[in-house]
Amino acid sequence: MSLREEALHIHQTSKGKLETTAKIPVRNAKDLSLAYSPGVAEPCKEIYDEQLKVYDYTMKGNMVAVVSNGTAVLGLGNIGPDASLPVMEGKAVLFKSFAGVDAFPICLNTTDVEEVVRTVKLLEPTFGGINLEDIAAPSCFAIEERLKKETSIPVFHDDQHGTAIVTVAALINALKLTNRNLSSIKVVANGAGAAGIAIIKLLHRYGVRDIIMCDSKGAIYEGRPYGMNGIKEEVSNYTNVNKVEGGLEAVLEGADVFIGVSVEGALTRSMIQTMKKDPIIFAMANPNPEIMPHEAMEAGAKVVGTGRSDFPNQVNNVLAFPGIFRGALDVRATHINERMKMAAAEAIASLVSEEERSSEYVIPSPFDPRVAPAVAGAVAKTAMETGVARIEVDPEEIITKTRQLSMIDSEVSEVSDNVKI
Amino acid sequence: MSLREEALHIHQTSKGKLETTAKIPVRNAKDLSLAYSPGVAEPCKEIYDEQLKVYDYTMKGNMVAVVSNGTAVLGLGNIGPDASLPVMEGKAVLFKSFAGVDAFPICLNTTDVEEVVRTVKLLEPTFGGINLEDIAAPSCFAIEERLKKETSIPVFHDDQHGTAIVTVAALINALKLTNRNLSSIKVVANGAGAAGIAIIKLLHRYGVRDIIMCDSKGAIYEGRPYGMNGIKEEVSNYTNVNKVEGGLEAVLEGADVFIGVSVEGALTRSMIQTMKKDPIIFAMANPNPEIMPHEAMEAGAKVVGTGRSDFPNQVNNVLAFPGIFRGALDVRATHINERMKMAAAEAIASLVSEEERSSEYVIPSPFDPRVAPAVAGAVAKTAMETGVARIEVDPEEIITKTRQLSMIDSEVSEVSDNVKI
Repeated sequence: MSLREEALHIHQTSKGKLETTAKIPVRNAKDLSLAYSPGVAEPCKEIYDEQLKVYDYTMKGNMVAVVSNGTAVLGLGNIGPDASLPVMEGKAVLFKSFAGVDAFPICLNTTDVEEVVRTVKLLEPTFGGINLEDIAAPSCFAIEERLKKETSIPVFHDDQHGTAIVTVAALINALKLTNRNLSSIKVVANGAGAAGIAIIKLLHRYGVRDIIMCDSKGAIYEGRPYGMNGIKEEVSNYTNVNKVEGGLEAVLEGADVFIGVSVEGALTRSMIQTMKKDPIIFAMANPNPEIMPHEAMEAGAKVVGTGRSDFPNQVNNVLAFPGIFRGALDVRATHINERMKMAAAEAIASLVSEEERSSEYVIPSPFDPRVAPAVAGAVAKTAMETGVARIEVDPEEIITKTRQLSMIDSEVSEVSDNVKI
Repeated sequence: MSLREEALHIHQTSKGKLETTAKIPVRNAKDLSLAYSPGVAEPCKEIYDEQLKVYDYTMKGNMVAVVSNGTAVLGLGNIGPDASLPVMEGKAVLFKSFAGVDAFPICLNTTDVEEVVRTVKLLEPTFGGINLEDIAAPSCFAIEERLKKETSIPVFHDDQHGTAIVTVAALINALKLTNRNLSSIKVVANGAGAAGIAIIKLLHRYGVRDIIMCDSKGAIYEGRPYGMNGIKEEVSNYTNVNKVEGGLEAVLEGADVFIGVSVEGALTRSMIQTMKKDPIIFAMANPNPEIMPHEAMEAGAKVVGTGRSDFPNQVNNVLAFPGIFRGALDVRATHINERMKMAAAEAIASLVSEEERSSEYVIPSPFDPRVAPAVAGAVAKTAMETGVARIEVDPEEIITKTRQLSMIDSEVSEVSDNVKI
């Protein structure tokens, strides 16, 4: 069977990938009296008296909504909410399989920012967190910004921040490998979509000061008279301080790092040859990268990362989001703030030891079972330190619990001790 | 432990009652490539090309939203969406335990009819059916009416129709026991809330012509100059044709059947003594009925039904909704129409054989394992007959499947042959 046939077969045979399961099944009158009437009135009354007890007596504290309107699904584009459901079910399966987080697809039949915001706010009583997924730019920015302000549960647009966190994790190790510092590198990012913007924001937060972002019209700079919007204006405030104009090829000269979230073929060998020595290349266009890894290496790249599982250094969001929500939920965080994202990136990076670190290994495998526990512990710890946690929990407890909840096949037989939290 | 303590304990220990489970867990790279990227693109493309294939490749066809805004929860009243979550989780557990239907709580933070309608419409891509729950009258009527027209999936307000179907099922057998016909009885209903209205509507549909409905102000009649609203106006169009005025006591004289969905103590022995010989009493106020069964029997009642599990003839919605949605989902019905509701009532009634029928047994036990399969089969068959089914399925197959999916402890060791569909 081809991959296509096999994928259709398993989806059809199981009628999707997600189901709801009773933690307390009702098999007889006694069960009914406890889980439903009349016993259920007791937790209802407790929550009515003290709203936060909803975390004690209901599924809310472990339940994430995977919210999409199907406007930017995988490489498929705007396929709408119905056709996006298999992806959102899949995302929910990853949450559960990697970190024991319950997640439920919410595919919304609207492209209106105001309606998405309003709907998610109305749904807040049911969910402990909101994962925004595959919502097209620039709507995704406004939706996330609004929901972060207007709800009291964590809101996280994975296409932005998941990608950014994992990219930064890989970059941290790539810089160590090449003896560079975040504060002194020049980064050129190609592609001004949700992921690209989030990556440069996080890099800026990390102290990277020389960043140029390119869109299809070339370098973005303050006051560029064409192809700008609110988000690009914002980008131009903290990047490209010298207002360099020109295409990718022109601005890439002398750069240490290329970050591609754009299209196949956007980067060439000759462009790499104009970069600094031992350049670092993240060519994350899907399914085909901006340049194939062997070509980039031949042109002098020291490290190449892509989005693909068949090349080394796969930048895969699944390294981040399950552990991030696990940690945030376990301390009943109200937000996922920048410090928590940085803690996640560093936790992921820390799992590659100095001895293991190489051109072909700057980021753990998506199926490294140490990752979600390390991320969960680090995120929870940072949430408590930054005042967004509603309860205190020992991060070690969260690490142990996450290990137990993980369903992934262990590729690493022993859990390393170098998990930093 | 008291019931209160035990109920709180199990809710807290298990952190609620519902979880999401992966039907296809992702344990390794191969799983990931099929359930998520890149394989998941295949079902997405199929659905994009033909929207109804969403039923083949996703969870939609077995997933019901349990929608509430917490405005009329159990006997607790308007406790809001957060405090209603334990009930909605419980309802979802009942769907799964009794008929293998996946269900998910949607607790909406609004009391505005328009917002509830709009939100549920936006959620339609994810769900195969909508169960409205614990939404206060009169909003519940408008919400259901609008959603039935404006969505293409079954919408069912259980507090109305579930109660009506099970009450009518019990009444069918009570009438047989007392040699009465639907067409010649006089029915007095006390309580003009969601359940009361739905019961008299269904009775009218069944050909009952002499119905008087009372609210707290007495008999409702056309043109009553006080305490009317749109719904009561509608009621007055097909009930109380002689425009009898007066309180419950006055209009109950000579009635065959009392249906109470009102308050404790609303019915007295002396009132029952003015009814026809061998009157039928459904005293369904919760937790305490309009009159206690032994008092009603002493006053001459032939059959007494209540909402309680500790008395005979428990009128419990769980006899209806799991099988109704099972049947509707299995033929991908677009609606749950009146004929399907009647089929459900008759399927439930048919499980009490002539030999078994007695004053204390006019309705099967909520834990009779024959019920959900019989209801599912009858509802599916009627959906196909009335043109609201999208696909044809042998009802016998649905009956067998529902039996297999049921998790309830079998109180009846052999499945009787007298299941009519």
